[in-house]
Amino acid sequence: MKCDAIWKDARLATMTGEGLGIVEDGLVAQRDGVILYAGPRDAAPPADAVETFSCEGRLVTPGLIDCHTHLVHGGNRANEWAMRLEGASYEDIARAGGGIVSTMRATRAASEADLIGTALPRLDALIAEGVTTIEIKSGYGLSTGDELKMLRAARALGERRRVRVEPTFLGAHALPPEYRDDSDAYIDLVCNEMIPAAAPLATAVDAFCEGIGFSPAQCARVLEAARAHGLAVKLHAEQLSALHGSAVAARHGALSADHLEHAGDEDVRAMARAGTVAVLLPGAYYFMRETRLPPIDAMRRHRTRIALATDSNPGTSPTTSLLLMLNMGATLFGLTVVEALRGVTVNAAAALGLTDAIGTIEAGKACDLAIWNVGDPAELVYRLGFNPLHQRIKDGR
Amino acid sequence: MKCDAIWKDARLATMTGEGLGIVEDGLVAQRDGVILYAGPRDAAPPADAVETFSCEGRLVTPGLIDCHTHLVHGGNRANEWAMRLEGASYEDIARAGGGIVSTMRATRAASEADLIGTALPRLDALIAEGVTTIEIKSGYGLSTGDELKMLRAARALGERRRVRVEPTFLGAHALPPEYRDDSDAYIDLVCNEMIPAAAPLATAVDAFCEGIGFSPAQCARVLEAARAHGLAVKLHAEQLSALHGSAVAARHGALSADHLEHAGDEDVRAMARAGTVAVLLPGAYYFMRETRLPPIDAMRRHRTRIALATDSNPGTSPTTSLLLMLNMGATLFGLTVVEALRGVTVNAAAALGLTDAIGTIEAGKACDLAIWNVGDPAELVYRLGFNPLHQRIKDGR
Ligand SMILES: [Zn+2]
Ligand SMILES: [Zn+2]
Repeated sequence: MKCDAIWKDARLATMTGEGLGIVEDGLVAQRDGVILYAGPRDAAPPADAVETFSCEGRLVTPGLIDCHTHLVHGGNRANEWAMRLEGASYEDIARAGGGIVSTMRATRAASEADLIGTALPRLDALIAEGVTTIEIKSGYGLSTGDELKMLRAARALGERRRVRVEPTFLGAHALPPEYRDDSDAYIDLVCNEMIPAAAPLATAVDAFCEGIGFSPAQCARVLEAARAHGLAVKLHAEQLSALHGSAVAARHGALSADHLEHAGDEDVRAMARAGTVAVLLPGAYYFMRETRLPPIDAMRRHRTRIALATDSNPGTSPTTSLLLMLNMGATLFGLTVVEALRGVTVNAAAALGLTDAIGTIEAGKACDLAIWNVGDPAELVYRLGFNPLHQRIKDGR
Repeated sequence: MKCDAIWKDARLATMTGEGLGIVEDGLVAQRDGVILYAGPRDAAPPADAVETFSCEGRLVTPGLIDCHTHLVHGGNRANEWAMRLEGASYEDIARAGGGIVSTMRATRAASEADLIGTALPRLDALIAEGVTTIEIKSGYGLSTGDELKMLRAARALGERRRVRVEPTFLGAHALPPEYRDDSDAYIDLVCNEMIPAAAPLATAVDAFCEGIGFSPAQCARVLEAARAHGLAVKLHAEQLSALHGSAVAARHGALSADHLEHAGDEDVRAMARAGTVAVLLPGAYYFMRETRLPPIDAMRRHRTRIALATDSNPGTSPTTSLLLMLNMGATLFGLTVVEALRGVTVNAAAALGLTDAIGTIEAGKACDLAIWNVGDPAELVYRLGFNPLHQRIKDGR
C-alpha cells in the first residue's frame, strides 16, 4: 500500500470490538488523513510510506472525543461560586446578578471575536490532552442573533485549531428574562425562528429537559422542529429530577441523552433500543456535589452505550480536562477502565453520530490518534490531574 | 533601593494578614533572590533595577507549596485500581501482589537514578502549576538502605529542577514483611538505626498513626527519636479512625498533623494551641471515596491553621495537581477561596517550618512568585483541570 505515514512499534488500543481492542506490536498506516491499515505489524500489507515513525512501545488510542461541552461563553462564575462557599444562598446569588442569566448577559455583551478569544485557551487545554473532536453547544445567547453568534464562534474555533468541532444548537437551554412568563412563546421562537436560522450552522439540536428548564412536551416540540430541518437531536435529561426526558430522546431517535443521574430502568432500556447513547457528565455531578448516581448497572444490563464528557461550562462544570473526567467516571460513577476509555472514543463518536468517521483505530476512519507516555491503558484513567500525552495526530498529522 | 528585578502592574495576593492580602497596582522588588519590597507601587521607595517587568494587571501569588507528597516511588498501582473497579476485593488485590507492598517492592528494586527519573515528570507537572517548594517523603523503602536511597533521590530532584525540596523521613509508613510479627522491633530499627542515618538527609520525620500503620505509642517513640536528632516532626493522623494521633503530634510540637478526617474537637484544639498545622488531603479523600469530612468548623473555631496538599502517591492519591486540590478542598471539604489559597501558600509554609522563608509576598522572604492569567483569585480555586499559570519565579528568576 502507498501511504503518507506509518506509525509502528505501537501498543494500539483500537477500541474495536467490545473491549479496548489491544494490538501489541501494532502499526497504523494513513493516506490523505484516512487510516489505510491498523493492526498487527506482521499482518500489514507491504507498504511504501513517505514517513515512518516509531512509537517506541507507547500506547496509542483514538484521538479523544469530548461529546458534550458549552465551551463558548462569556465571563465566568468564579465569584458566584466563591459566594456559595461563603454560605450564600441561591437567592443571594441571584440577587447579586449570578446564575445562568449572568452568563447570558456576558455572552450577549461579547462579540464573536471575544467568544472565540476566551474559548481558545479552554480548547487548547483539551487539545493538549489529545482531544481531536469536540462538540460545542450554543445556549447562552437565548436570542436568535446571540445564538447564531455562538454557533459561528464554535465553527470558527474549528478553523483556528486542527480539531473537529461539532456545533449544537441549544436555544432551549434556559428561559431568557424577556420571556419570563411565557415559556411556550419562547419555545415557539426556538422552533419557528431559531432552528431554521441555526440549521446551516449546527449539526444537532439539544434542549434542557428539567423543572428549571423546559418540560418534556416542550422539548419534544424542539426535537421535532430539529428533525424537520434535518438535524440530529439530543437532550439534557434526568439531571436533577426524573421527568423521563431520556425516553422522549429515545422516542425521537436522539443521538444521546445526557446527565441521567435520575434516569430509571425503563428510560435506559428505551435508550438502548433506540441506540441513544448515555452521556455521563461526572464533572457536573462532582462540582454540584450531587449524590445520586446515574443507573450504571441498568445501562450495563440493557447494553446502553455509555460516553463521558466534560460538560465544560461556567456554572456547573468549569473543567477543561477530559482526562479528569475519565478518572471521575471511574472513581465517582464506578465505570471500569474499559468503559471509561470507550466513553471518550468509540461511544463518544456514536453520541455525535460519527461512528463511521472517528472513534476507533481502523481502516476507513480519520487518522486521529493520541500517543501516550504510559504502558497500561489503566494509567490514563487512574491518574488525577496528570497529562501523559506524548503526541496528538489529527487527520494524519 | 538597588535591586535585580522589579515586577510592576501586579495584582498582588501577598497572603499577609488574615486574608489574601490583596494589593492593587502592586510592585515586587528583589535582590539576590530575596524580596526587598512588596506592596503598592506608589509607596515603593525609589528603585534602581537591573530589569523591570510588567505583569499587565495579572494576579501574582506566592509560589505554591505542596507540603505533603510521596512523589518518589517505584512503579504505579493503576492495575490494582483497575481490578478494584472490576469488583476485586482487597484480598484479591493482595493475593495478586498489590497494595503498599507492591510499591515497596518496586521502590526497593529501583535504583536511585530510576527513582529520580520516574519522579521527574510528576515534579514537572507540579512546577508547571507554579509550585516552588515541595515536601517529599520516604517510606516505601522500609529498610535503612532503601529509605536513604529515597531521601537522596528526593534531594537530587531539588538539584535537577529549580524547586525547593524538603525531604521527610517516613520509615514508619508501613510494616515491611520482614517484621510481620513484630512491629515494635521495626520501630526499634526506625528509632535506633534509620533516624540517625536519615538525619543528615531529612529535615523532618513523619509516621503513619493508624490501625493499619503504627500505634500512637509507637509513633510517639518515633517522634521522640526524631526530636533527639534535632529533626522537626509531623504525623499522618486520623485518616481512617480516631486514634488521636493528632494530639500526640501536638504534644510533640509537630509542624503538622495530616489527613484528620476522624479528628475530634479536642484534637483540633490541641493542634491550634501547639501551632500544629492541619494538612488536609482531599485527593486521598476523593480517590478512596471516603465520606467522613475533616472537622473544618472546629478548625475554624479553634483557629487551627489549615494547609492543603496533593499527598501525591501511587496507592491513594495518584495526583500531581495542586490546583486540583484547591478545587477539591473547596468543593469536597467546603473550604473558602481564602482558606484554600492560604492552604497552599502561607499555611503550607508553616506546615514545613518555613514561615520565615516562604509562603507570603513580603520583604525578607524568598522571591518565589506565581503569575497567573486570571483576574480574580477565586478562579484559581474554581476551575477544574485548567492551568492558568503565566510564569513561575523561583528565587527571583
Ligand atoms: Zn450541558
Ligand atoms: Zn501521605
